Amino acid sequence: MQEVAILGVGQTAVREHWDLAIRQLAVDAGRAAMLDADLSKVDAIFVGNMTSGRLNKQHQLGALIADHLGQWGVEAVKLEAACGSAGSAMRQGYLAVASGEIEAALVIGVEKMTETNFKETTAALTGAADADYEVIHGITFVGLNALIMRRYMHEYGYTRHDFAPFALNAHANGAKNPNAMFREPITEKMYDRGRVVADPISLYDASPIGDGAAALLLVPASKAPQAVRVIGSSVSTDTLAIHDREDTLWLKAAEQSARQAYAQAGIGPDDVDLFELHDAFSIMAALSLETCGFAERGQGVRVAQAGDILPNGRIPICTMGGLKGRGHPVGATGLYQIAEATLQLRGEAGEAQIDGARIAMTQNIGGSGATIATHILQRP
Amino acid sequence: MQEVAILGVGQTAVREHWDLAIRQLAVDAGRAAMLDADLSKVDAIFVGNMTSGRLNKQHQLGALIADHLGQWGVEAVKLEAACGSAGSAMRQGYLAVASGEIEAALVIGVEKMTETNFKETTAALTGAADADYEVIHGITFVGLNALIMRRYMHEYGYTRHDFAPFALNAHANGAKNPNAMFREPITEKMYDRGRVVADPISLYDASPIGDGAAALLLVPASKAPQAVRVIGSSVSTDTLAIHDREDTLWLKAAEQSARQAYAQAGIGPDDVDLFELHDAFSIMAALSLETCGFAERGQGVRVAQAGDILPNGRIPICTMGGLKGRGHPVGATGLYQIAEATLQLRGEAGEAQIDGARIAMTQNIGGSGATIATHILQRP
Repeated sequence: MQEVAILGVGQTAVREHWDLAIRQLAVDAGRAAMLDADLSKVDAIFVGNMTSGRLNKQHQLGALIADHLGQWGVEAVKLEAACGSAGSAMRQGYLAVASGEIEAALVIGVEKMTETNFKETTAALTGAADADYEVIHGITFVGLNALIMRRYMHEYGYTRHDFAPFALNAHANGAKNPNAMFREPITEKMYDRGRVVADPISLYDASPIGDGAAALLLVPASKAPQAVRVIGSSVSTDTLAIHDREDTLWLKAAEQSARQAYAQAGIGPDDVDLFELHDAFSIMAALSLETCGFAERGQGVRVAQAGDILPNGRIPICTMGGLKGRGHPVGATGLYQIAEATLQLRGEAGEAQIDGARIAMTQNIGGSGATIATHILQRP
Repeated sequence: MQEVAILGVGQTAVREHWDLAIRQLAVDAGRAAMLDADLSKVDAIFVGNMTSGRLNKQHQLGALIADHLGQWGVEAVKLEAACGSAGSAMRQGYLAVASGEIEAALVIGVEKMTETNFKETTAALTGAADADYEVIHGITFVGLNALIMRRYMHEYGYTRHDFAPFALNAHANGAKNPNAMFREPITEKMYDRGRVVADPISLYDASPIGDGAAALLLVPASKAPQAVRVIGSSVSTDTLAIHDREDTLWLKAAEQSARQAYAQAGIGPDDVDLFELHDAFSIMAALSLETCGFAERGQGVRVAQAGDILPNGRIPICTMGGLKGRGHPVGATGLYQIAEATLQLRGEAGEAQIDGARIAMTQNIGGSGATIATHILQRP
């Protein structure tokens, strides 16, 4: 195993890209990462994507994107773990370079969700849950998260309003990110008046779908001493069906994945300067903070209320908008997180810059906690 | 990079498994591989699958299968490269073990294609081709292969009848494999009378869809000196759209992938004792023989006619039925090939045994040659 570095970063804005095919989104981000790394040839391409087979009627994105990037003949494959697809692609790119078999790996997350009708998109997203034991009852993916949030409120005595700080922080940070889908801060009043999507989840508790692609170029750290290094990489899993878990309010896979990544990096939560977590829904942000060691059980919401998650707080989260503010093109999100963390560590995050950031953690979640990919990055 | 060995093999029969969910098929094959290896715990699971998101409405197969195999918490992910998904999963499992990061990797290919209507299955399979430039014209995947076969016949002066030896060999071999979907040899007369599916491809030129799963358990070779070793592993890609290729009758990715695998193994085509190639259609078998060095250009059909591909021939192919005789559960096929090759090298192929087999090659193809995964195995 050799150390791995992130030599290039690229991303498209998250939007409703009516005029760009899925291959073009991927090529735009991939080419940007290659230009950033000043490399014109890579040895392998790992594509994270969830729904292309169903929504875009296109399989085999690996070979397709390799071709359209002009990387003819290179090894390429798509990886899928629902909304955790891009974090999983990062993990495979990491392993390929760490093994010494691949010199330069291009990892691309891409998703195009807005060209079909929303009913079909919503149906496709339920594929992240257990089709035979959860979805068959007619529940949506938002509905499953609403059940978890309701239980959390019941167990620890919170109201809907208590979750507002997560949404306020995400949108305030998204406003500073030119690639974010939503670039306006929101107020507490707006949050409280947000329409209910699936009680108790309201509009500002839920991240928006979107079209977009993010890419990284990975090389051995020995070849790029000035580049951001990947010092922790771990994937862990849990049951898809929430009713199969011993504890509905504990992301066991997040705890395990974070613990493994901490051990590999030789650090603990106190050493993390910013945390790009998977705030697909506000409740997921609270649970991630708790399971990864940034808050006591049931105190994720309190930590947010205390201001710890703000850019100048103890553990800034979603520093460039998170899933809520930047947008959530599901199979691309995990690489947006790592791209943003890399920019932070390089000091290139513009208005969103966290001063003195040295170590960043990212965590990408597939389903309601079934696949969790945690990565820890360090400034050179 | 450390050497990798295949410690366990498992498979389900290829059938129309109306009574088994996709997770159950995967669990049956995975558990069989673990029992075969005498291991009760693995460190990572790599799942090859093409159409689960569309046909089974189920994403995130990695975590789902890890859970149902009782491998709670382990790293898991799905890999997709159309019909080359399982070969691609093998490649990632190989890299994970070779890197030293993963001690025991379970690689499972699974596909359940017969529970939806055939029109939907046919539509899903077109996702292996270029959705925007090929499929939009209304052509099916069989249709694309028919165009290649027609061109081949035109260019080299063959008739439909000349392709019969591929079908006869596959079905004769499938008759000896208890897991094969079709267990009856066919006659030349049957071949000639086969109904046309997409002119000039007739019934016996096309492999059948099916439900099934195959699995391998990979470990470092140093831990299993008596196990079959993986001495070559390579994936290469080409354009999805056939009209984008310089030469329609040359599988460039197959040539490159085989060349890399030969180099890694330190062997050439003459050293290969059996070749599990991807005979989704007869024309693909002919092209694979040519591009991998077993026949001169345009002579793949002649080599078959000369009997070289038979079990006692120079280069036996599809020794346990191939895609045509065993059946083609698309995202599982690449691992059926490697499982069968492993049984051959262990001398456990029963009636289908190739005497003295020492080195076997497998080649899994996604699309009409867009993703090619080649593996070379050696008897310990």
